[in-house]
Amino acid sequence: MNSAINRQFRLKYRPEHRVTRDHFDFVEEPLPQPGPGQALLRNLYLSLDPTNRIWMSDMEQYMPPVQLGDVMRGSGIAQVIASQDPHYQVGDLVMGLIGWQDYTMTDQALRYAPLPKGLPLDLPTVLGVLGPTGLTAYFGLLEVGQPKSGETVVISAAAGAVGSIVGQIAQLKGCRAVGITGSSEKCAWLTGELGFAAAVNHRDLGWKDQLKQACPNGVDINFENVGGEILDTVSSLLKLRARIVLCGLISAYNNGHSMASRADLVPILMKRARIEGFIVLDFAERFAEAQAELGQWLIAGKLKHRETIVEGLEHVPEAFNKLFDGDKIGKLMVKIADPQ
Amino acid sequence: MNSAINRQFRLKYRPEHRVTRDHFDFVEEPLPQPGPGQALLRNLYLSLDPTNRIWMSDMEQYMPPVQLGDVMRGSGIAQVIASQDPHYQVGDLVMGLIGWQDYTMTDQALRYAPLPKGLPLDLPTVLGVLGPTGLTAYFGLLEVGQPKSGETVVISAAAGAVGSIVGQIAQLKGCRAVGITGSSEKCAWLTGELGFAAAVNHRDLGWKDQLKQACPNGVDINFENVGGEILDTVSSLLKLRARIVLCGLISAYNNGHSMASRADLVPILMKRARIEGFIVLDFAERFAEAQAELGQWLIAGKLKHRETIVEGLEHVPEAFNKLFDGDKIGKLMVKIADPQ
Repeated sequence: MNSAINRQFRLKYRPEHRVTRDHFDFVEEPLPQPGPGQALLRNLYLSLDPTNRIWMSDMEQYMPPVQLGDVMRGSGIAQVIASQDPHYQVGDLVMGLIGWQDYTMTDQALRYAPLPKGLPLDLPTVLGVLGPTGLTAYFGLLEVGQPKSGETVVISAAAGAVGSIVGQIAQLKGCRAVGITGSSEKCAWLTGELGFAAAVNHRDLGWKDQLKQACPNGVDINFENVGGEILDTVSSLLKLRARIVLCGLISAYNNGHSMASRADLVPILMKRARIEGFIVLDFAERFAEAQAELGQWLIAGKLKHRETIVEGLEHVPEAFNKLFDGDKIGKLMVKIADPQ
Repeated sequence: MNSAINRQFRLKYRPEHRVTRDHFDFVEEPLPQPGPGQALLRNLYLSLDPTNRIWMSDMEQYMPPVQLGDVMRGSGIAQVIASQDPHYQVGDLVMGLIGWQDYTMTDQALRYAPLPKGLPLDLPTVLGVLGPTGLTAYFGLLEVGQPKSGETVVISAAAGAVGSIVGQIAQLKGCRAVGITGSSEKCAWLTGELGFAAAVNHRDLGWKDQLKQACPNGVDINFENVGGEILDTVSSLLKLRARIVLCGLISAYNNGHSMASRADLVPILMKRARIEGFIVLDFAERFAEAQAELGQWLIAGKLKHRETIVEGLEHVPEAFNKLFDGDKIGKLMVKIADPQ
């Protein structure tokens, strides 16, 4: 070990709006040694995801909120550096809930999954495409959205970690992917490298007309990450029996304790459409199957990806806001340490 | 024929808010004789339904809007009084789109269905329970909601034509029906004669707590007719993978040309719930099957019902507002004439 201390961001106050460093205590704890049935992990890459913002609030949610005083929860990749648990061997690379800290002590209640073996992929790629965000894209589009060849799939936050994968899987399945994103640079990435059929910048004055023109036959599937005006605009273009895959509502996450994100249901009624919420954890039994297929696509060059990597655990709170500022492209993560 | 004239309400202006008589021309036309392939119907009972209000607007909707100058569209029961169409015999009783008028000339594009035969039921019962509203209740709950025995089904506008049937079918299928309605008299009807497990009056100050107490294990299915605050309140009680059967959004129908009804999607996301819009016309192929089962339940005394019947075509515009004022119970209809 390089260090005998474990730096940790512990949740101090629940943010109502934008997250700041002041919402956390940045503490240093002595590094414990694993007891029987435990393993000690060195955290390497921490994933930053919009859903982390939900965990900071005490609203009713799909997992228990992070308790005040606890280490902030986060997914990532780590390496086993000491083990008294036969499931983990020193040197193993694993993925799971590591938290905003330098080291993680494993907990019997949480399973840390070994990284998929035999794939010639670097760790950021594995975390982004084979981790929670890639899996969210995979199951959300294929299981909840049920895309059929020839359909038009509109994706909001399309240049994000989830959206960029959703659009490419849609294209692989014979659909037309249309992305909504927040800059012309991101639009160019989507329609260029990623092969989206079209992309519109919601900061352009005429974006609603552009979206309509990009969907001349209407929208079969909306993969929704944002909510608010963006969702209502897509809803106005829904086809009969369209499906809205409700993955996230990021436009509401910094809007105070009583987080709410309202959407017009009149088009849902008129078009006999469906809105369905989902959480990737519901598909945990099938993660390995999905990772195998995503891995194949990656190796075949069919899934392009980009990462925005911030160096240093100490920068996590500021890095986190890049999710809300649109100030990054692809998958956002923090590099904490190199593997040994 | 008693009269050689046909009185008609023709749409003159599109209402933005509440409907008044001034939105129509009440005209008298000479009664035409049917040509080849036509039949003339005397209208007997006109159904008044919230969805009529949508037809008066020119928003994008599930059928073409009623055009300015045209007879206002409406469902009802009529009797064939002259026919040059072999499908219709003089004296036949039929159900279909008759319009706000004394007589209807059949149109090849519209099918008027013969009333179910051999059922000892009066015409208002047939129109209410075996007509569009009863069919809406049947297909919405059973096909879209997919109720399972033991589940809790919450119904808004529960003492209305659709809601009162939904709750009784839910109970017949082994579910707990919980109604939301607008008076203590209606609550008493729901839990008394109709056998709902519970009913709450949304005009009571404490109705949200009452609803929560009436659903101690949460809500599996919400049959939604209203929208707005009522829907958001039910959404806060949804169980994991709950279904919202989106049948209507009556709270928005008088809210101006750009009708919108916003609902909070955060609980939909957190509970992995589903909102699905539907229109009864999508099930037209199966109406006879549903009418047979509804008819059996009626004859066996398992479906109770009430009608609010206004006498006289001339009163239709004022009668129509009873749908929005809560000023009626059960199925609202206007009696135009007696059968011969």
